[in-house]
Amino acid sequence: MGTRIEKDFLGQKEIPDDAYYGVQTLRGKENFHITGIPMSLEPEFVRAFGYVKKAAALANRDLGVLDRRIADAIVVACDRLIGGQMRDQFVTDFIQGGAGTSTNMNANEVIANLALEHLGYRKGEYQHVSPNDHVNFGQSTNDVYPTAFRLALILRISSYADALRRLQEAFNAKGREFEGVLKMGRTHLQDAVPMSLGQEFHGWGTTIGEEVQRIEEVRSLLREINLGATAIGTSVTAAPGYPELATKHLSALTGIEFILAGDLVEATSDTGAYVLLSGVLKRTSSKLTKICNDIRLLASGPRCGLNEINLPQLQPGSSIMPGKVNPVIPEVVNQVGFLVIGLDLTVTLAASAGQLQLNVMEPVITFALFTSISTMQHAVSTLRVHCIEGITANVEHSREMVLNSLGIVTVLKPSLGYKQCAEIAREGYETGKSLHDIVVNERKLLTQEKWDEVFSFENLIRPKFEQ
Amino acid sequence: MGTRIEKDFLGQKEIPDDAYYGVQTLRGKENFHITGIPMSLEPEFVRAFGYVKKAAALANRDLGVLDRRIADAIVVACDRLIGGQMRDQFVTDFIQGGAGTSTNMNANEVIANLALEHLGYRKGEYQHVSPNDHVNFGQSTNDVYPTAFRLALILRISSYADALRRLQEAFNAKGREFEGVLKMGRTHLQDAVPMSLGQEFHGWGTTIGEEVQRIEEVRSLLREINLGATAIGTSVTAAPGYPELATKHLSALTGIEFILAGDLVEATSDTGAYVLLSGVLKRTSSKLTKICNDIRLLASGPRCGLNEINLPQLQPGSSIMPGKVNPVIPEVVNQVGFLVIGLDLTVTLAASAGQLQLNVMEPVITFALFTSISTMQHAVSTLRVHCIEGITANVEHSREMVLNSLGIVTVLKPSLGYKQCAEIAREGYETGKSLHDIVVNERKLLTQEKWDEVFSFENLIRPKFEQ
Amino acid sequence: MGTRIEKDFLGQKEIPDDAYYGVQTLRGKENFHITGIPMSLEPEFVRAFGYVKKAAALANRDLGVLDRRIADAIVVACDRLIGGQMRDQFVTDFIQGGAGTSTNMNANEVIANLALEHLGYRKGEYQHVSPNDHVNFGQSTNDVYPTAFRLALILRISSYADALRRLQEAFNAKGREFEGVLKMGRTHLQDAVPMSLGQEFHGWGTTIGEEVQRIEEVRSLLREINLGATAIGTSVTAAPGYPELATKHLSALTGIEFILAGDLVEATSDTGAYVLLSGVLKRTSSKLTKICNDIRLLASGPRCGLNEINLPQLQPGSSIMPGKVNPVIPEVVNQVGFLVIGLDLTVTLAASAGQLQLNVMEPVITFALFTSISTMQHAVSTLRVHCIEGITANVEHSREMVLNSLGIVTVLKPSLGYKQCAEIAREGYETGKSLHDIVVNERKLLTQEKWDEVFSFENLIRPKFEQ
Amino acid sequence: MGTRIEKDFLGQKEIPDDAYYGVQTLRGKENFHITGIPMSLEPEFVRAFGYVKKAAALANRDLGVLDRRIADAIVVACDRLIGGQMRDQFVTDFIQGGAGTSTNMNANEVIANLALEHLGYRKGEYQHVSPNDHVNFGQSTNDVYPTAFRLALILRISSYADALRRLQEAFNAKGREFEGVLKMGRTHLQDAVPMSLGQEFHGWGTTIGEEVQRIEEVRSLLREINLGATAIGTSVTAAPGYPELATKHLSALTGIEFILAGDLVEATSDTGAYVLLSGVLKRTSSKLTKICNDIRLLASGPRCGLNEINLPQLQPGSSIMPGKVNPVIPEVVNQVGFLVIGLDLTVTLAASAGQLQLNVMEPVITFALFTSISTMQHAVSTLRVHCIEGITANVEHSREMVLNSLGIVTVLKPSLGYKQCAEIAREGYETGKSLHDIVVNERKLLTQEKWDEVFSFENLIRPKFEQ
Repeated sequence: MGTRIEKDFLGQKEIPDDAYYGVQTLRGKENFHITGIPMSLEPEFVRAFGYVKKAAALANRDLGVLDRRIADAIVVACDRLIGGQMRDQFVTDFIQGGAGTSTNMNANEVIANLALEHLGYRKGEYQHVSPNDHVNFGQSTNDVYPTAFRLALILRISSYADALRRLQEAFNAKGREFEGVLKMGRTHLQDAVPMSLGQEFHGWGTTIGEEVQRIEEVRSLLREINLGATAIGTSVTAAPGYPELATKHLSALTGIEFILAGDLVEATSDTGAYVLLSGVLKRTSSKLTKICNDIRLLASGPRCGLNEINLPQLQPGSSIMPGKVNPVIPEVVNQVGFLVIGLDLTVTLAASAGQLQLNVMEPVITFALFTSISTMQHAVSTLRVHCIEGITANVEHSREMVLNSLGIVTVLKPSLGYKQCAEIAREGYETGKSLHDIVVNERKLLTQEKWDEVFSFENLIRPKFEQ
Repeated sequence: MGTRIEKDFLGQKEIPDDAYYGVQTLRGKENFHITGIPMSLEPEFVRAFGYVKKAAALANRDLGVLDRRIADAIVVACDRLIGGQMRDQFVTDFIQGGAGTSTNMNANEVIANLALEHLGYRKGEYQHVSPNDHVNFGQSTNDVYPTAFRLALILRISSYADALRRLQEAFNAKGREFEGVLKMGRTHLQDAVPMSLGQEFHGWGTTIGEEVQRIEEVRSLLREINLGATAIGTSVTAAPGYPELATKHLSALTGIEFILAGDLVEATSDTGAYVLLSGVLKRTSSKLTKICNDIRLLASGPRCGLNEINLPQLQPGSSIMPGKVNPVIPEVVNQVGFLVIGLDLTVTLAASAGQLQLNVMEPVITFALFTSISTMQHAVSTLRVHCIEGITANVEHSREMVLNSLGIVTVLKPSLGYKQCAEIAREGYETGKSLHDIVVNERKLLTQEKWDEVFSFENLIRPKFEQ
Repeated sequence: MGTRIEKDFLGQKEIPDDAYYGVQTLRGKENFHITGIPMSLEPEFVRAFGYVKKAAALANRDLGVLDRRIADAIVVACDRLIGGQMRDQFVTDFIQGGAGTSTNMNANEVIANLALEHLGYRKGEYQHVSPNDHVNFGQSTNDVYPTAFRLALILRISSYADALRRLQEAFNAKGREFEGVLKMGRTHLQDAVPMSLGQEFHGWGTTIGEEVQRIEEVRSLLREINLGATAIGTSVTAAPGYPELATKHLSALTGIEFILAGDLVEATSDTGAYVLLSGVLKRTSSKLTKICNDIRLLASGPRCGLNEINLPQLQPGSSIMPGKVNPVIPEVVNQVGFLVIGLDLTVTLAASAGQLQLNVMEPVITFALFTSISTMQHAVSTLRVHCIEGITANVEHSREMVLNSLGIVTVLKPSLGYKQCAEIAREGYETGKSLHDIVVNERKLLTQEKWDEVFSFENLIRPKFEQ
Repeated sequence: MGTRIEKDFLGQKEIPDDAYYGVQTLRGKENFHITGIPMSLEPEFVRAFGYVKKAAALANRDLGVLDRRIADAIVVACDRLIGGQMRDQFVTDFIQGGAGTSTNMNANEVIANLALEHLGYRKGEYQHVSPNDHVNFGQSTNDVYPTAFRLALILRISSYADALRRLQEAFNAKGREFEGVLKMGRTHLQDAVPMSLGQEFHGWGTTIGEEVQRIEEVRSLLREINLGATAIGTSVTAAPGYPELATKHLSALTGIEFILAGDLVEATSDTGAYVLLSGVLKRTSSKLTKICNDIRLLASGPRCGLNEINLPQLQPGSSIMPGKVNPVIPEVVNQVGFLVIGLDLTVTLAASAGQLQLNVMEPVITFALFTSISTMQHAVSTLRVHCIEGITANVEHSREMVLNSLGIVTVLKPSLGYKQCAEIAREGYETGKSLHDIVVNERKLLTQEKWDEVFSFENLIRPKFEQ
C-alpha cells in the first residue's frame, strides 16, 4: 500500500494512501500514546463533530464567506460522519494535550479528504479543500470541540436516562408486588418500627426517579454553547452573524434547541456544566451505592443473616465453598459507583485547572464523563435485568422477625408514654421475653383483642394514631 | 452552685442547676468529644430548631393531641430560641453518633425546661412538660433533625448568595472600568489573540453570576422536607394530618414555602439535596480557584512576570525579601477552595453511607456544609473587599506586549490564509522580528494605513471580519 | 488601655500596649478572617516555633553573625514559648495567604518583644531587637515555617500513635477473651465458614498495628527539613555553615534527629511528606471505617439482626422509639473517617498547587493535618474507651447460627468433593433441612461419631485437613 | 464450529469447542458487561495466575494431596500462561462482582482444559482434571486472586519505576546542562531572588527520585501475601503446611521473596497495601502536576510570557491561530495526573467498603491500579522523550530579567538591613528605576566594583554571606 506526503509548518510526514486523516492527526496520534483508547470508541462524539462542522459550513455558505461548491462538499462529507461512517478514521487518543486540537484537526482532515474525493480530487490536495481554511473556516478548536462535546453528551445521556427510568419502574413494580409483605424497618442497623417491603422498594424507585429529573436539568444547561467564539471568545476570524446562524443551523440539524452563550469570553474557558453533570452522576452513584448495600444486607444469609429477600442466582459464588451464591450484581454496581465518584474528582480537578482564556484540560473531562456515563448505563441496566426484576421475598421469615421484635413497642408510645414503653422494652431486652408476653399477659396493659387490632398488618404499616 | 438529678432508662446523672439542657444532652456531650466545636457556633441551626419545634407544637395543639397549655408554653420557649437566646445551652459536638439524637434531645430538653419555668415549675420537673412526650410529641430525630438542618441551610445560603452577588458586581464594575485596556489573550499560557482587560473581568462576573443561579436552584430543592415522617417514614406516633399541618405552620412561621415529600420513606433516608448543595459549593470553588490563579498570574512580576494588573498591597510579603508584596488574598481564597472541595468529598462519603431506613451520618454532613458555607462566604467577601475592588491596570505595558506579539497574525488569517500567516509567524518566532516589520516593510502585504486600521484597538477587541 | 504605634514599609498601625505581637501580625489578623480558628489552638505549633527560632539564634550566635546579647535574649524568649506560655499572642488564622509569613512574623514579633522586655527595653523598640533583622536573621518564612510545621507534626503524631497502639491492644485483649466463641465467618455478607470471634477481633488488632508502623515510617520522612534554605533554597542571607549548624541545634534541643535536605531548592517547594502522612491517616480512616461498619453489623438487632455482640449502652438511642439503643460510637468514628478522607483530598490539592520555588498553599495543609490528627486521636480513644473495651459476646446465639448453617459443608469438601458438597448445600437451601440431617441421617455419608469430630469447635476454628 | 456442554450446580451451558474456558467463565462474561475491557489486556495479571496456580500445584503435589500426574499436567498448563500464551482466553471484565471468582474460575478452567489436552483427554472432561477439585485444590478466590494481583503489581511497577528513574536522569542531565543559566527565582509568582536554571531542573530530578524510593518501599509491602488462607483465613480445605510451602514455591518461581502474612484472617480482608501504592501514585501525580505547571509557565510566551525555556515543537498548536505551538506534552501529563488522583479515590472507596471476612470490591481496585500505572508510565516516558530531553534555555532573556529586577535587593539585606533594603525596593517599584541606579548612582551605598562582585553570577546563584 502506498503513501502520500502531507506537510504543515513543522515539516512533512508520510500518510497511508487509504487514510482519510492527514498530517496533523498523525502527529497527534504519535504524540499521545496515553490511554490507548481512540476517540472512535465513542460514536456519538464522532457524529457530533459531523453535525457541528455541517452547521458551520452551512452558516458560512449562507453568509457568503465560504464558496458554495466547497461548502456543499463539506456538507456531504459531514453527512457520512453523522450517518455513523468513517469512525475508524478517528484515531487520536481520548486524553491529549492541545485542548482537543488533534481531535478537531482529525475531523477537519477526514472531512476535507471526503469532500475532496466527492469533488473528484485526490486526498491531500488541500489547495482545493483545506482542513484549516475551509472545513475549519471561522472556527477554533476552542469553540468547536466543546460544542461537539456538549452535543455528544446530550445524545449520550438520553439513553442513560432511559436506563435509569426503567430501573425506577422496576423498583416501583416490585414495590407494588411487595406491598403486603410486613418487615422490620431498621435505623442504625437496629430494629426500629415495622413497614412493608413494598414501601422500601418504592422508596428506591422514588429516589432514582429524582435522578432522572436532575439529569434533565443538567441536559438543559448543556445546551448553552460558544459556537462562533473562535479562539478566545472575541469571534476573531468569524463573519458577522456567524455565531447566531451556526447555532441556529445546529439546532435545526439536531432537533436540540441550542443557546448561544451571552458572554462568549466566559463561555470559552468555562467547564462548569461538565462539573454539574459529573456531580449528578456522582449523586446517582452515591444513591446506587446505598441501595446496593441495602439489597446485599437484606439478602444476607441464608441462615446467618437477615434473609428477607432472595436475589436471582447467576453463578456459583465460590471456587471453594460448594453451593454458595453471592450477590454479584449489587457488588459490581457498588464498584461502578466507586469508579464514577473517582472520575468526578478527575472532572473537578480538570475544571479547576483552566487558565486565562481557555481550559486546556477538557480532553480528560471527555474521557471521564464518557466513561462514567457508559459504565453507569451498563451498571443500571445490569442491576435491573439481572437482579431487581428477579428478587423474591421471604414473607414468613420477615413477618416472624417483626412480631418477635421489641421495636414494635413504639406503636404503643402515644397511649402508654415514652417512659413506660422504655421500661417494657428494657425488660424484653434483658429477659428475652416477647413484647406480647409483657404487655398482655404480665402487665395486662392491653387486652388480646386490642393487641390484635394494634398489631395488625394494616396498623403496623400505616399506624393509626391512638392516645 | 447546686445540681439537680435527672434520669433516663440508662440511669441518672447530676445536672448543673442553671443548665437548661438535661440528662440526655449531658450524655451526648460526654460521649462525643470529637471536634470540640459545639452546635451553638452555628446560630441559624439553633434558631431552626426553635422554628421546627414551634411548628410541631402548633400542629399538635390544633389537632387536639397536645394539651393547649403545654403547647403554648412550648411555643413561648421556642420563640426565645428563634430570637437568638439560649445558644450557649446547645453544647453537643457537631459530629456525633446517633444521627443527631443528642442534638434533638438538647433542643427538647432546653425547650422543656424553658416551658417549665414559664409555667411556674422548676427545671427537670418533666412530669409537667416532658422533652420526649410533649416537646418531641409525634416527632423523631429522623424527621426533625433534617428539617431543622434544611431550614438552617436555607437561612445560611441566603447571606452567602448575597456575598457572591456582590462579588459578581465588583467584577462587572471592573469590567466596565477596564473596557478600554488592550491586552493579550492567552490560551495554553501562549500568546493567542488580543482582547480587553474589561472582557476578562466581565467574564469572571458572568461565571460567578451563574453560581448564584445554581444556589437558587438548590435552595428550591432544600425546601422538600419529611416533617411528620417520624422514625422511618410511616408517621408512626404522629396524629393524622400532622405532617401536612406541621409543614404548613413551618412555612407560615418562616416565610419559606416548604413542601412535604411525596414519599416519606424515601425522604427519611435521602441526603441527595445536601450532595447537590455541596456540589454547587464545589463548583464555585473550582471557578474561584481558576479566577484566583488567573489573578495571581496576571499580577506576576513586578519585573519578571506578566505584570498586567496590580493588586492592593496589604502586608509585607516576606520576612526576608525587603519590599516584596505577595498576592495573599487570592492565595487564601485558593486554599479555601481546596478545603471546600475536600469537604464535598466528606459529604459524598457520608451520603453514600446511609443504610436501610436512615442515614445516620447526617451530623458530619452538617459540619461539612456549615464549614464550607461559612469559609466560602468569608473568602468571597475578603476577595472582593481586599482585592478585586482595588485592582489597577498597567495599561501601557499590556498594550506594548500586544503590539510586540506574533499572536495578532490571526487577525490576518481570513485575508491571507492560514498557511501564509503561519509562515509569517514562524519568521517572527525565529528571527525575533516584529509582525509589522515582516508584513508591512518586508513582504508589503499591507499598507501602513491598512495596518493601522486592522490593528486599531477597536478592531483588536472586536475584530471586524475581512476576506 | 493604651496603644503603641508600629510601622512597616506599608505604613503604621496602632497596637494594644499589652500585645506582644506587632504590626505585621495585626495586618495578617485583619486580612485573614477565614476559619476563625487561630493558630494558638494547636499548642505544639507554637512550641515548635519556639524551638526553631531558638535553634536559629544559637546557630547565628555560634557563627558570630548575631550579637551575643541579642541572641541570648532571643533564646530566653523562645524558652517561654517552648514552655507553653504566650499562646494567646498567636492570633493569626490557620488558613492564610502569604505561605505562613503572617505566622512567622507573629512568632518573630512576639519573640522580639519578649526579648526587648528581657533586656529592659519596651515593646516595639525594634531598633534594639528587630523581628526581621535579629529574630528572623538568616531565615525566611519559606524554611522556618515548614520546619516548625514538621516538628509540630512529629510532636503531635507521637500521642496519636499512642492512642492507636492502645486501640490495637484493646482489640487484641478482646481477641484473647473471645478466642473460644464460635461464629459464622461471612464473605459477600453470605454465610461462609466458621471461625472464632477472637480471630475477628485479633484481626482488627493486627490491622491497626500496621498503621502504627506506617506512622513511624512517615515520622522518619518528616525529619527531613530545609532549615537554612531561606527564600528559595539558595541560602541567600544565611551565614556559611548555618544550615547544618541550625539543624544540629534543633536536633539537640528536641531530641529528634533532624536531617538537612540534600537538595534545598527541591526541599523548599516540596510538600510530599505531608501528602504521605495524610495518606496514612486516610488509610487508617478507611480501615476504621471497615471495622466500625463490621462492629455495627455484628451488633445489629437485637432481634432482627446478626446480634453476635453487644456494645456498651451509652445513651437512649431515640427520641421516639423507647428502649432503643444505637451504636453511636462506631457511628461517630465512621463520620470522622469521612472527614479525614475529605481533608486528605484538601492536602493533595494544596500539594499539587505549588508553583516554581515555593508552595504557598502550605497553611491549609497545616489546618487539614492538625484537624485530621486531632479528630482521629479523639475518635480512636473514644472508640476504645466507650466501645471496644465494653463489648460482650452472645456466645450461644452465635454458635447456634453456625451449626444451623449450610456454609459448614465446606469443611467436607476435601473428602466429598466440590460437586457432591454443592448438591448437599443446594438441598439444604431448597428444603430448609439441616446439614446434619442430610449428611448423617439421609445420605449416611458420615457417622455421628465422625460428624462430632469434624464439627467440633477446635476443628471448625482451625480445620484439620482430611481427604 | 461445534460446541460442548458444561454444567455447574446452577445448570448447563454451551461452550464453543475451541474455548479453553468453561461454564463458569461464560457465566461471568455474560453477567458482567461493564467496562468492556477484558482481563487479557493486562498480560502480567494472566501470567501471575500462571505462577500462583503452578506454586499451588507444586505444593499440593509435594504434600501428597494432589495426584502427581494431575499436578504435573497442571504445571505444564501453567507454564503456557507464564510464557504469555492463552491470553485471549481470559475474557472476564475487569470490574466484576464476586470478588474475582469469575477471574479465578477463568484461570482454573483454562488450566484444567490445557491439562486435560496434555493428558490426552478432551476439553470439558473434568472428571479427570477438575477446575475446582484439582486446579483450585486447597485454594479460594479469596487467597489466590489477591496473591496473583500482588504479583502482577510487582511485575508492573518494576517497569514503571524504570520509567520514573529515566525521567529523573533526564532532569538531572538538564540540570547539569543549565547550571550556568542565571534566572529569577519566584515565590508567590512574584520575583524573589536569583538562581540557576540548572538548580530548578535538578530539583525536579531530586523530587522524582524520591518517588522511586517510595515505590520501592511499597513494593516491599506488596510481597506480603495470604496464599493458603483459603476462604476466610482459617485455611479450611488446605493441607497442613500448605500456606508456607506454596509461598516458598511462589518465591522460587518468580525470584521475588514473598512473605506469608502472620495473621491470615486479617490479611484476607485487608487491602491496605493497595491504598498505599495508590497513594504513592497519587503523590507522584501531584508532583508531576506541579512540575508540568512550572514548565508551561516558564515556557509561556513567546512574547507575552516568561519565555525562559523553549519546549520541542511537536504539532501545530491551533486550528485557527497560524504559527502557534502549544505545550501539549506537559498538558497531557497534567491530565493523566487528574485521572490518577481520581482513581486513587476509587481505590480508597473500594478499600473502605470491605465487610467482615472479605473485601469483595477488589476487582475495581485492580482496574484502577492497572489503569493508573499504565497511564502514568506512558505519561512519564512521553514527558521525557517528547519534552524534557529537548528543552532549550533562553539564556540572555533570563539573565536580563534578573538584572532588571528588584528582587536582587535581598542579597544586600545582611549588610544594609531589612528596613533600608525595603525602602530601596519601594523606590524602584514606584519609580521604575533599576536597583543599580538607586544603590550605586544615587545613594552610593556600593561602589561599582563592589556591585560587580556582589551581583556576579557566582554570588547570585550561591550567595556569599556578607555583613
